[in-house]
Amino acid sequence: MNEDRRVDSESAHHAPAASPLNRRQFLAGGASLLAISASPALAGVQAEERSDAIDPTRVPGASPRSYGERSPFEKQTRLVANASSTTPLQDLQGIITPSALHFERHHNGVPAIDPARHRLLIHGLVDRPMIFTVEELKRFPSVSRVAFLECSGNSRDGWDKAQDLTVRHLHGLTSTSEWTGIKLSTLLEAAEIRRQATWMLAEGGDAAALTRSVPLTDDVLNEAMVCYGQNGEALRPEQGYPLRLLLPGFEGNINVKWLRRLKLGSAPFMTRWETATYTDLMPDGKAYQFSLVMEAKSVIMRPSGKQRLHPGFHEIQGLAWSGRGCITTVDVTVDAGRTWQAARLQEPVLPKCHTRFRLPWRWDGQETIIQSRCTDDTGYRQPTRESLIKVRGTHSSYHYNGIQSWKIERNGIVKNVHV
Amino acid sequence: MNEDRRVDSESAHHAPAASPLNRRQFLAGGASLLAISASPALAGVQAEERSDAIDPTRVPGASPRSYGERSPFEKQTRLVANASSTTPLQDLQGIITPSALHFERHHNGVPAIDPARHRLLIHGLVDRPMIFTVEELKRFPSVSRVAFLECSGNSRDGWDKAQDLTVRHLHGLTSTSEWTGIKLSTLLEAAEIRRQATWMLAEGGDAAALTRSVPLTDDVLNEAMVCYGQNGEALRPEQGYPLRLLLPGFEGNINVKWLRRLKLGSAPFMTRWETATYTDLMPDGKAYQFSLVMEAKSVIMRPSGKQRLHPGFHEIQGLAWSGRGCITTVDVTVDAGRTWQAARLQEPVLPKCHTRFRLPWRWDGQETIIQSRCTDDTGYRQPTRESLIKVRGTHSSYHYNGIQSWKIERNGIVKNVHV
Repeated sequence: MNEDRRVDSESAHHAPAASPLNRRQFLAGGASLLAISASPALAGVQAEERSDAIDPTRVPGASPRSYGERSPFEKQTRLVANASSTTPLQDLQGIITPSALHFERHHNGVPAIDPARHRLLIHGLVDRPMIFTVEELKRFPSVSRVAFLECSGNSRDGWDKAQDLTVRHLHGLTSTSEWTGIKLSTLLEAAEIRRQATWMLAEGGDAAALTRSVPLTDDVLNEAMVCYGQNGEALRPEQGYPLRLLLPGFEGNINVKWLRRLKLGSAPFMTRWETATYTDLMPDGKAYQFSLVMEAKSVIMRPSGKQRLHPGFHEIQGLAWSGRGCITTVDVTVDAGRTWQAARLQEPVLPKCHTRFRLPWRWDGQETIIQSRCTDDTGYRQPTRESLIKVRGTHSSYHYNGIQSWKIERNGIVKNVHV
Repeated sequence: MNEDRRVDSESAHHAPAASPLNRRQFLAGGASLLAISASPALAGVQAEERSDAIDPTRVPGASPRSYGERSPFEKQTRLVANASSTTPLQDLQGIITPSALHFERHHNGVPAIDPARHRLLIHGLVDRPMIFTVEELKRFPSVSRVAFLECSGNSRDGWDKAQDLTVRHLHGLTSTSEWTGIKLSTLLEAAEIRRQATWMLAEGGDAAALTRSVPLTDDVLNEAMVCYGQNGEALRPEQGYPLRLLLPGFEGNINVKWLRRLKLGSAPFMTRWETATYTDLMPDGKAYQFSLVMEAKSVIMRPSGKQRLHPGFHEIQGLAWSGRGCITTVDVTVDAGRTWQAARLQEPVLPKCHTRFRLPWRWDGQETIIQSRCTDDTGYRQPTRESLIKVRGTHSSYHYNGIQSWKIERNGIVKNVHV
């Protein structure tokens, strides 16, 4: 697997020989090396630096484009594996994940679906089985919602011994989008769902034809959506174009992509995907099925694995989320758990959505461990790795949400560790 | 200028010969033509329809990509003019505008700026003039905010006689993004702004070197940002890569892109851009300067100009926004103003941000006019075109926010009209 050997952009910018004292002065507003006395200095700096480059103020710029692209200087990418790719969380801002960098996970590749040929069938325990075209679905009353998705296997390395990896590699199977579609309940009403229907099979139109059983709980009936929109435009192919199921707070795979069929029933359908895989093996050898909710998790994204810090001011930043509702607090320790401080949460804090947290910090150059832990509005607090393993053992590949520890060595290198 | 001659997707899908009765039945849940009796029907439909196409369930899909793209079946574009392009509002979902479709407006093209060479100078009435690199700016405490931008010339056709144009053409110079950067006040503190500083010149690093004077009001000091992030990743080139000023609620051009200089002063700088242009010519021949706030506006996006409706159910959708704060209500009329109904506002409703509104409607096939009008949390209500012109005359090119009227003809064609 490809791994990210680049250090963070700030270490690339600041030469290792830079004096910590000067950096501290700069960040305290002293700025002795950077302060200048008058505006003509700018022209001097530019003339010197730009001797080998085109001055963008001297040449007309590019014409408007019908569909834009990012700057060629921007290189952030997903980390690509065989059947998945992860979001570069360490490089992102805010809470919306750019659609081009939303994580992907598929079981037989990303299908190329012509939306004019795609259909959604609703059948089983309904009085009016129906087939919808995508355009017909778009005519229904719609709703939009900002929500995270997370693969149940995200952070799975937490179950094993700690490896020296980036946050993108360890935790990048989660992303947030603004989703638009129809409430599932609207479609079930149109199909005249029968009273006995308590479960629903959802089937994808990809070459894996992934199927999952969805319990029709009150939360699902209130919140589930059949989506065609993502971040303002159509779903991206990797996220299920032209239709996907969205079950806010539930593990990624049950948010079935390339959705082509919903079958109503009175019991779970026990598909391959919820028997041979996507179950949680417990210490006693039994497996939990339908452990669907992604419990609260928080991860510090900056600084994080394989970055390199210099002493001085840093804004610690991370994301927290809960499949149960809203994040209420995120506490951060910069001294390996001896003391904790409340991080600032970026508003708006939305339910079942990434929430960015920030804490100012001055690193003194000494070895330390930094961690974050979050609480959601059910009162649930993210567990330590130790307490999680005490209950869950280490047989599972899924639903790891233990506190992430980043060790900062004296040379500034950040490493993934277990404590 | 290119114009959009395509009709909306639903009219492309539904043949003109389709029976209104059947459509109404379908939308009422009757679905006589669409209901099927059992799941094997699906296989039949697919086999027939896909005889000339690859069945995506029978071939492995594409591999993960490091940076994704939209489906090749999606064709929405900005409408490109000489020095601007407009967002295809009629095709979008939710409130986040995809960065690739954010409107653009520039005065000498989009510069290609190497962020490693770009600098921001802060000088004038400060005790510590400073030059920052982009990487240095990213080390400051940061903040994210979802906010709309709107060109002051958006909707300018409203001042003239009504032309038969699309909503993208008429109102597409507005978009919404999640912006990330530093609070302006943080930078001004670092530069030790002097007490006498009440205005600030902002200068772009493009080939127009656009300059605007920013009044340092409490709102500006509380809300203004120097941004480097847009929708999770770096600013797009058309929106100011690598740095732009963000003044939530103010007209687009003063949110200076490709920002390279902030000069503090005690009076407006009276630049070309606020004397020769970007002023509001009043009926008496005098010009208002520094009319910076974009007042509340709402526009129905679907149905809108040049689309074609069929009788039956439609969800009316549009966007409303105010440079003063939050949208509190949007009322919609479907009978040319005789009666008004409150539209449903999509949560979260954020200040100085697009707010999507929706209203279910059954078109009876008769000629009518539909309109929306919004109110913001200052109590301001969007004016009729008539009342706006009574005060402002028709000499201005800017700040048109009158109520938009869409006439629906008996043949279903939607036309921009003034009433």
